[in-house]
Amino acid sequence: MNSEFTPYYAVIFTSVQTETTAGYAEMAEQMETLAKQQKGFIGIDSARNAVGITVSYWKNLEVIQQWKQHTDHLIAQQKGIKNWYAHYNVKICKVEREYSFVKK
Amino acid sequence: MNSEFTPYYAVIFTSVQTETTAGYAEMAEQMETLAKQQKGFIGIDSARNAVGITVSYWKNLEVIQQWKQHTDHLIAQQKGIKNWYAHYNVKICKVEREYSFVKK
Repeated sequence: MNSEFTPYYAVIFTSVQTETTAGYAEMAEQMETLAKQQKGFIGIDSARNAVGITVSYWKNLEVIQQWKQHTDHLIAQQKGIKNWYAHYNVKICKVEREYSFVKK
Repeated sequence: MNSEFTPYYAVIFTSVQTETTAGYAEMAEQMETLAKQQKGFIGIDSARNAVGITVSYWKNLEVIQQWKQHTDHLIAQQKGIKNWYAHYNVKICKVEREYSFVKK
């Protein structure tokens, strides 16, 4: 990502897991692979310690809605609610400005 | 955070560290404590694996600018550029919508 794309959209997904982790890593990997194949996908950043943070970047609100409603993603969401997540929060954000540093 | 605050702003800070980690954890903790004391601060989420993601939430763009220019924070930023970060990216985002799930 860089500023040539702005404005674009970020989906900030934060979550706290339950003690049930069976199947989670595999599903998370599948969903990341699938997300990358969607129209309007720009990028994704992900890290997890006590809280998990996944930020995905999208061209506009329409493609975010399409990804949310993707059949395989809906199944993953239901499994997440049933098994894996004690809590999650989703924020839909407009990326208005960005800057970077790269060590030379 | 919840939707009663929207719209508000998120600063997505992603980073990759150098091999120099001395002093980093202490400074990161100091900066988080200091950020929480700033006017207009709403919340913060942080996780690090290969990439570090810190998302801080703020009431408006003005308080984000004030935090960026805070003297102690400027010193931390300079040390980060000199010692700790191989790469970082900052995105200023307007949080337009959010929703949550909490297991019962």
